[in-house]
Amino acid sequence: MLSVDEAQEQLLAAIPVLALEEAPILEALDRVLGHDAHADLDLPPFTNSAMDGFAVLAADTAGASADSPRRLPVVGYIAAGDPGTTPLSPGTAVRIMTGAPLPPGADAVIPIEQTRPLEDAVDLLAAVSGGDSVRYAGEDVRRGQRVLQAGALLRPGELGLLASLGYARVPVHRKPIVAILSTGDELVDIGKVPGPGQIRNSNAAMLASQVLRAGATPQMLGIARDTREAVHAALDAGRGADLYVSSGGVSVGDFDVVKQVLTERGSVDFWRVNMRPGKPVAFGRIDGIPFLGLPGNPVSAFVTFELFARPVLRKMAGHRLRYRQPIPVVMDDRVPSANTRRHFARAFARWEQDGWHASTTGAQESHLLSSTVVANALVIVPEGSADIAAGERAAALLLEWPESL
Amino acid sequence: MLSVDEAQEQLLAAIPVLALEEAPILEALDRVLGHDAHADLDLPPFTNSAMDGFAVLAADTAGASADSPRRLPVVGYIAAGDPGTTPLSPGTAVRIMTGAPLPPGADAVIPIEQTRPLEDAVDLLAAVSGGDSVRYAGEDVRRGQRVLQAGALLRPGELGLLASLGYARVPVHRKPIVAILSTGDELVDIGKVPGPGQIRNSNAAMLASQVLRAGATPQMLGIARDTREAVHAALDAGRGADLYVSSGGVSVGDFDVVKQVLTERGSVDFWRVNMRPGKPVAFGRIDGIPFLGLPGNPVSAFVTFELFARPVLRKMAGHRLRYRQPIPVVMDDRVPSANTRRHFARAFARWEQDGWHASTTGAQESHLLSSTVVANALVIVPEGSADIAAGERAAALLLEWPESL
Repeated sequence: MLSVDEAQEQLLAAIPVLALEEAPILEALDRVLGHDAHADLDLPPFTNSAMDGFAVLAADTAGASADSPRRLPVVGYIAAGDPGTTPLSPGTAVRIMTGAPLPPGADAVIPIEQTRPLEDAVDLLAAVSGGDSVRYAGEDVRRGQRVLQAGALLRPGELGLLASLGYARVPVHRKPIVAILSTGDELVDIGKVPGPGQIRNSNAAMLASQVLRAGATPQMLGIARDTREAVHAALDAGRGADLYVSSGGVSVGDFDVVKQVLTERGSVDFWRVNMRPGKPVAFGRIDGIPFLGLPGNPVSAFVTFELFARPVLRKMAGHRLRYRQPIPVVMDDRVPSANTRRHFARAFARWEQDGWHASTTGAQESHLLSSTVVANALVIVPEGSADIAAGERAAALLLEWPESL
Repeated sequence: MLSVDEAQEQLLAAIPVLALEEAPILEALDRVLGHDAHADLDLPPFTNSAMDGFAVLAADTAGASADSPRRLPVVGYIAAGDPGTTPLSPGTAVRIMTGAPLPPGADAVIPIEQTRPLEDAVDLLAAVSGGDSVRYAGEDVRRGQRVLQAGALLRPGELGLLASLGYARVPVHRKPIVAILSTGDELVDIGKVPGPGQIRNSNAAMLASQVLRAGATPQMLGIARDTREAVHAALDAGRGADLYVSSGGVSVGDFDVVKQVLTERGSVDFWRVNMRPGKPVAFGRIDGIPFLGLPGNPVSAFVTFELFARPVLRKMAGHRLRYRQPIPVVMDDRVPSANTRRHFARAFARWEQDGWHASTTGAQESHLLSSTVVANALVIVPEGSADIAAGERAAALLLEWPESL
């Protein structure tokens, strides 16, 4: 029997980081940069005005005040987008807009609020110093500078910076494609009414949304009946994927054709992992593609996806932080031990001003999907430990950004 | 001058919650349920086996042990998907798979690990009680029960439950479409090399990725030159949107055609909000569509989007929690006051076992996009308060799930 940590380590050791591609910038959001990014120009690209006002030589404003204004002739107007090459002569002012290039010869901008504009002149109501209201070329970023390192997570701020440096396409690790396999004669599509002995194929939709949340792309292979032909055809349809995920149908003792087909097309090992919920997890390769077989119980499938599939997908996508970090929570209610197994109890965690608190979400049997509703965390009861009592601290994995933040 | 809170309240008061639509289930992820959801059947739909093993009458196993096995004839086999209508006669056993319907007459399942299967019989190595390894019809959810309330956030667990209840399509609030308007003769597309006085249109990509992160769909209207025709054409292209967002070009004193066009097609107010960064924010309606004009400085645009546009989009999408809640952080470094204004300083927050810590991300001038890189939080220095010193507590808004969790 493997510990959860051993199973995670062995699994990730067998998983490659996916190759790079050039993604259109908006498709790079929340993905991982593949190469260092360097500046192709200064930012700002040219020295410009930080305010609407008048470009001046600071020395020409000396002594100006509301009581004793200094009058300068206004000899021009520079809008944003002007090339800004006409120099300013000492003793004159030029009307200038925010973002417009500072004319050569000027060294400051006096904001319009500190002036009284006249017909062809302006009264300055304050003195300014050299550099006031000026943004210098390169003060944010220098041409040639490395602005982001390979491995950086691309958030809106990073994408804004890359956009300003010309990255219409961004080198990122490929987004993993996950083929989701559903097998079993008992399954019907979710739009159908199940007959006697049948159930709707709810795991595929749940796993696909977990795939989406993990930043990957689900590919629905549909329901394969329990025949060799059907299972072969489903696997064929997933040949372009980076990972197969199935739930149910591939546990140790099962009497079914899925295992036969998997064995013919690759190899699959059955791991017993010392945890609850979660029965054996199957892992192998089918046609060279990693295959992860999760338990069929909805809750076991949900939890084992979070513990095993999500880190696999994060590694594939180039993330360096692959596992969620446990945080301390104070429990509102008791969390039962699973004796010698590590128990992951569904819980709802919330932030309060004194820290994290959590409540379990009802009965913890592994087929009770209703207890997964509202859960945003897994509270961990370590193997061999006693129940966690109400009011005690526990470690929890947060499955999502709590709404309360 | 409005406080940030007043501006947020006035803004949201003018924004409608969007209508409902029926979305394919995977497109409903992370959206808000529009109607209460009820169960169309019991879950599980029928009483079934929780284990691979033998369906029995518990009374027939009385006294069985490894030392003194009880032998029963095996009279059938029930696979998952079988209708399961043949009754079990007392004194017999039926081989049964996980998820297969329990035959009428049986009241327990003995797991295969506690048996020794023979040719046409089985030796039971343990006694079981009525209900052991049985999942009863309706024990998770009862037919007709309300399983989710209107307003629920749809996470993978909720979608799994809805899938099991037949929701191939889910009633959710429409996803807001945000038309992003870029105006200015100084802007060039991000794939181009800017000429003298020009800059790349980086704000549109940044805002579009903020729109995506807020759960909405960006519509890029491209760059409109400073002509009436160009601005009209860009607004025409956005007519199907739920919100226009622009950055720059619509501040109080600006001399430009955008304002003229906006005034012709609707009304726009210019709000001075008591904050830094962020100059006036413009808000109004164009052709009946809400219009939000953000400042042109990248950092001001970034911060005002988070404070004003994101709550608007969350209200439109039906979320009841629209604002981020401030959390306490311990600062690693000093955060300067903005005197009478509320200062939102870009910072990087991380979770440590004793709570949240944050560092500012360098110079806080509003055009320094590089300081927005790496930022995942805004540290708040209230209006009128002194600088926050290193080691002191501050309130912060977390902009994203910290990688360290």
